[in-house]
Amino acid sequence: MASAASRSVTKFKPLFDRVLVERFAAELKTKSGIMLPEKAVGKVLDARVVAVGPGARTEEGKSIPVSVKTGDRVLLPEYGGTKVEFEEKEYFLFRDTDILGRFSE
Amino acid sequence: MASAASRSVTKFKPLFDRVLVERFAAELKTKSGIMLPEKAVGKVLDARVVAVGPGARTEEGKSIPVSVKTGDRVLLPEYGGTKVEFEEKEYFLFRDTDILGRFSE
Amino acid sequence: MASAASRSVTKFKPLFDRVLVERFAAELKTKSGIMLPEKAVGKVLDARVVAVGPGARTEEGKSIPVSVKTGDRVLLPEYGGTKVEFEEKEYFLFRDTDILGRFSE
Amino acid sequence: MASAASRSVTKFKPLFDRVLVERFAAELKTKSGIMLPEKAVGKVLDARVVAVGPGARTEEGKSIPVSVKTGDRVLLPEYGGTKVEFEEKEYFLFRDTDILGRFSE
Amino acid sequence: MASAASRSVTKFKPLFDRVLVERFAAELKTKSGIMLPEKAVGKVLDARVVAVGPGARTEEGKSIPVSVKTGDRVLLPEYGGTKVEFEEKEYFLFRDTDILGRFSE
Amino acid sequence: MASAASRSVTKFKPLFDRVLVERFAAELKTKSGIMLPEKAVGKVLDARVVAVGPGARTEEGKSIPVSVKTGDRVLLPEYGGTKVEFEEKEYFLFRDTDILGRFSE
Amino acid sequence: MASAASRSVTKFKPLFDRVLVERFAAELKTKSGIMLPEKAVGKVLDARVVAVGPGARTEEGKSIPVSVKTGDRVLLPEYGGTKVEFEEKEYFLFRDTDILGRFSE
Repeated sequence: MASAASRSVTKFKPLFDRVLVERFAAELKTKSGIMLPEKAVGKVLDARVVAVGPGARTEEGKSIPVSVKTGDRVLLPEYGGTKVEFEEKEYFLFRDTDILGRFSE
Repeated sequence: MASAASRSVTKFKPLFDRVLVERFAAELKTKSGIMLPEKAVGKVLDARVVAVGPGARTEEGKSIPVSVKTGDRVLLPEYGGTKVEFEEKEYFLFRDTDILGRFSE
Repeated sequence: MASAASRSVTKFKPLFDRVLVERFAAELKTKSGIMLPEKAVGKVLDARVVAVGPGARTEEGKSIPVSVKTGDRVLLPEYGGTKVEFEEKEYFLFRDTDILGRFSE
Repeated sequence: MASAASRSVTKFKPLFDRVLVERFAAELKTKSGIMLPEKAVGKVLDARVVAVGPGARTEEGKSIPVSVKTGDRVLLPEYGGTKVEFEEKEYFLFRDTDILGRFSE
Repeated sequence: MASAASRSVTKFKPLFDRVLVERFAAELKTKSGIMLPEKAVGKVLDARVVAVGPGARTEEGKSIPVSVKTGDRVLLPEYGGTKVEFEEKEYFLFRDTDILGRFSE
Repeated sequence: MASAASRSVTKFKPLFDRVLVERFAAELKTKSGIMLPEKAVGKVLDARVVAVGPGARTEEGKSIPVSVKTGDRVLLPEYGGTKVEFEEKEYFLFRDTDILGRFSE
Repeated sequence: MASAASRSVTKFKPLFDRVLVERFAAELKTKSGIMLPEKAVGKVLDARVVAVGPGARTEEGKSIPVSVKTGDRVLLPEYGGTKVEFEEKEYFLFRDTDILGRFSE
């Protein structure tokens, strides 16, 4: 059996219309500076795009580019996505069509 | 992990055929001016379009523009839609095809 | 939050292949003139078309006109349709393809 | 609300690929002339086509004519179809594709 | 209501890709000539094609001829098919695509 | 009713994308020659193709040849397939697309 | 019945868009060299591509090449895939579209 070498996120390329994102850290204090317990803070739905696939394939085999690009700030749906880990850090894979929207910055 | 900056609705761009809407406020008094408790008032199905996506993609990857535009007054279905929050204000994302109709003004 | 102005059916335009109809009043007396209690009368399936959408979209984004037009008298299926209210009057939205048939007059 | 005028089957035009049929009367006596109670007789699956729709629409909006015509004698499936009434007489609407076959006469 | 005349299998024409078949009689004796009770004999899956429809329609409305023809000996799937009766004899309707195979003779 | 003549596998032609296979016999002894009870041996997934259909039909009615041919040694999925018998021998019908792979020999 | 010869992975060719992979061995010690019991180690999702099929077929019967090639290091989804054995070694078959991504090396 082959041996598993350490794997790096920079070498990872999603397939088809998958988009790899990193969620933003939860804001754990209020505007007035009071610290909040992690549980009181909702799921973070804001994320940064880390890598994108070449896009879904048409019936004829042509790839349709995804609608977001590396570096984009996006809004994720509350449910869905696949958790993946690279070097002990958590990332998520979403289908391009499941991402709700993008923020211009 | 990246830090989450404050996000503004004006910078949000829905993806595909998603439409961002803001529901109208419930009418809390009758025509004769009597105040109504909020519970007695049905769900508000009237909304204003705040932002629209580029449209769903055809099999060949071309975007088909959505059928409503920013500023349109629309009639929402009773169920469905995804609640999203920007700067503590509630908005909803609907698929273009789920919006029942539009009012000319 | 925006304020909800009064809305009129004459300003409502259904989207896609939706058809807005108004059901006919139930006949509450027999041919010989005897009055019937409302419960003894079946659901009214006859309706008048009040407004029609531009039609469903093809895969390429072209609208296919619906098969009925404003003013048409139609036969509704027993189940389905979405109730909507304009100025305290009840209307129903049906998909063009769910309407059973049309009466020539 | 509009008033419901009497409706006639001769004025009814099915939509899309719907076919309006009238079932044949059950044979209530045996070949040797013995009368049978109605319950002993199975569901009648033979019917006469009374009216046909213009046909289902292709993705491009073209109607494909149905495969039966008014006057045809057809064999119905045991289940399915929608009962409709015109002037106190029972008719049934079937999708063209649900009709099992046709008899040449 | 119309009156039901006697119907003959020779006048029956299946619609679309339906195939009318007549199952072969079960072999009720072993090769050595011993009679078997009917229950000990499995379902007969061999059948003769009696009539075929013009074929399923393409999206554009063209009929695609079925893959078997009248007189062909075919192998039926164990489940499925619709029993129909003509002149007190049992026949079955199968979709062309549900028939497992054909025997050359 | 027609009489069922004996049927031979050599005369059987599968329809559409069906593939008729014969499973290999289970190996009932270990490499060192010890006999194994049949129950200890897993389901045999290796099979020989005996006959192939003309292939599935495209929407336009053209047959797409199947991806295996008579004589090919193939790997079957653990579940699925339809058992058929010819002259007291067991065969299986699989859809071309359900066969996992093929061995070059 | 045919006799089953020994089969080799090098002779196996997946069909359609199936990809044969070999999972990497689980890392059973921590970076500091401490041995871990196998149960404490999660499912290995990293794998090496061993063989690929010719690709899924379009509606017209043309094969669309898969998006990975023999030798590629890939990331598998946590669930799915079909276990197959060649010469007492475990392999897995995945659909090309189910593989999450690929690592450049």
